[in-house]
Amino acid sequence: MTRTDADFMSEAYDEARKSFDAGGLPIGAILVRGGEIIGRGHNQRVQKGDPILHGEMDCMRNAGRQKTYRDTVMYTTLSPCMMCTGTILQFGIPRVVIGESRNFAGFQNVLTEAGVEVLDLDDPACTKLMGGFIAAHPALWNEDIGE
Amino acid sequence: MTRTDADFMSEAYDEARKSFDAGGLPIGAILVRGGEIIGRGHNQRVQKGDPILHGEMDCMRNAGRQKTYRDTVMYTTLSPCMMCTGTILQFGIPRVVIGESRNFAGFQNVLTEAGVEVLDLDDPACTKLMGGFIAAHPALWNEDIGE
Repeated sequence: MTRTDADFMSEAYDEARKSFDAGGLPIGAILVRGGEIIGRGHNQRVQKGDPILHGEMDCMRNAGRQKTYRDTVMYTTLSPCMMCTGTILQFGIPRVVIGESRNFAGFQNVLTEAGVEVLDLDDPACTKLMGGFIAAHPALWNEDIGE
Repeated sequence: MTRTDADFMSEAYDEARKSFDAGGLPIGAILVRGGEIIGRGHNQRVQKGDPILHGEMDCMRNAGRQKTYRDTVMYTTLSPCMMCTGTILQFGIPRVVIGESRNFAGFQNVLTEAGVEVLDLDDPACTKLMGGFIAAHPALWNEDIGE
């Protein structure tokens, strides 16, 4: 049975929940190749005191060194920041599925102008989890996006 | 005594040498605030099997969470890739000093168009160290830049 984008987004959401439950920013990501998850991760800036560990970066790290990323899809619960956008471009990931962009618009135009296919699912669960965190922890959120 | 850009670049070069001596990509970076080094790092993709640990990223990680980066300068021995360019933009680092861009042009136009001040020192020592590594290990270099 072929897994859908919504299926994989639910896996990214599970990663976001792990961070939320640990007091961190609830953003999760999954890297998929040929229907198989080859990496998963979540924002660990608070948990590990590591400023570069956004969800997408933690996912890339956990996937390890790959010969190519041109056959992969990145699923992330929140529209990527410029660090993660640059990373997607640098590694040549051709497709990005986003949980939501209501809480953070990100730089989808930078991705699409570089030829990356972007799908925004506008998922209510991702939006609610992130929105709740931002309302409760505005300082952590502002630090996360460099403001 | 005020330290010069060349002084700080020699510190970034020392970081690059650490990676070279360990069999990794010889790219180093230093983050400076008010004349003081607050972070240093080097490419550790090979050493740690971590695809995101370019020199600049390792430096950002080691600097830890900062309230702001708007008063910092990034020194890096090689012109930054798109991941590191996105990271510099995301964190709002206003000035980047580059050792050389002969071995990799990078995306200096993306930085300057976003208002970042970029200075390319065209340093012979940085150029020689990197050029020698690329000639000896072309596969590792191509993987590093996602090709």
